[in-house]
Amino acid sequence: MNAETIKATAEAEIRELMDNWLQSVRSLDVNGIVSHYAPDIVAYDAIAQLQFKGVDAYKKHWETCLAMVPAGAMIFEIRDLNIAAGDDVAFSHCLNWCGGKDENGEEKASWMRMTSCYRKKNGKWAIVHEHFSSPFDMQSGKALFDLKP
Amino acid sequence: MNAETIKATAEAEIRELMDNWLQSVRSLDVNGIVSHYAPDIVAYDAIAQLQFKGVDAYKKHWETCLAMVPAGAMIFEIRDLNIAAGDDVAFSHCLNWCGGKDENGEEKASWMRMTSCYRKKNGKWAIVHEHFSSPFDMQSGKALFDLKP
Repeated sequence: MNAETIKATAEAEIRELMDNWLQSVRSLDVNGIVSHYAPDIVAYDAIAQLQFKGVDAYKKHWETCLAMVPAGAMIFEIRDLNIAAGDDVAFSHCLNWCGGKDENGEEKASWMRMTSCYRKKNGKWAIVHEHFSSPFDMQSGKALFDLKP
Repeated sequence: MNAETIKATAEAEIRELMDNWLQSVRSLDVNGIVSHYAPDIVAYDAIAQLQFKGVDAYKKHWETCLAMVPAGAMIFEIRDLNIAAGDDVAFSHCLNWCGGKDENGEEKASWMRMTSCYRKKNGKWAIVHEHFSSPFDMQSGKALFDLKP
């Protein structure tokens, strides 16, 4: 394979990994979600802690997060996905419309940001770093949930 | 060069770029800071907006941010820096102790998170994506400025 083909293949592999991961998130399938992570993942999530080190700590956090969402009520859409993939190092970033439906079926969601970083080991890509966040307002210190892309 | 040497060289280049960028940030040198960015950078900053698209928009935002810090009062330290670098795609993440000194010389700073993504074009690395954030508290919606690593 020439350099261009390798790059296109790597990008397609990352896109597929991301699709599978998204499907796991939307199905509230914590084992599916963490199957995409490297054992030594370092995650910066939008809430609660500065960082989660290692897949076990991050899995516990995901369980806490998913427990807040009623079955079938998860909203997790992405847009403006941008992928850069080399031989065995890759990253992607996108905006995500993230939240759930309340008991009346009304959407409670906001736009957030997501950066994902990947490495390929033994022929298999894994997410080694994930960063989710909402920006905050300097005056009030409050997260800005009403921003539009 | 074999694969290992290429990797080590790329990692050293990213480390040097990061050192230079840090020096620009600490000197409140906005031209120095943006000289490390690709023209089409997409930045997710900790405050104000969901995203900044393109170096001009992001430069304006940096100018606003730096104007809040008195000369010599900038605090921007990093720890737990982790770099992954391939041929022409790389990323890094770290925690940063970020803030300034007030009129009495007292530190007003907090721990934040930073992810940086790089591409090499025409033999030169540039930052193509940057993501800064503070996590927030689910109950209050407020950014958590008192977290310790």
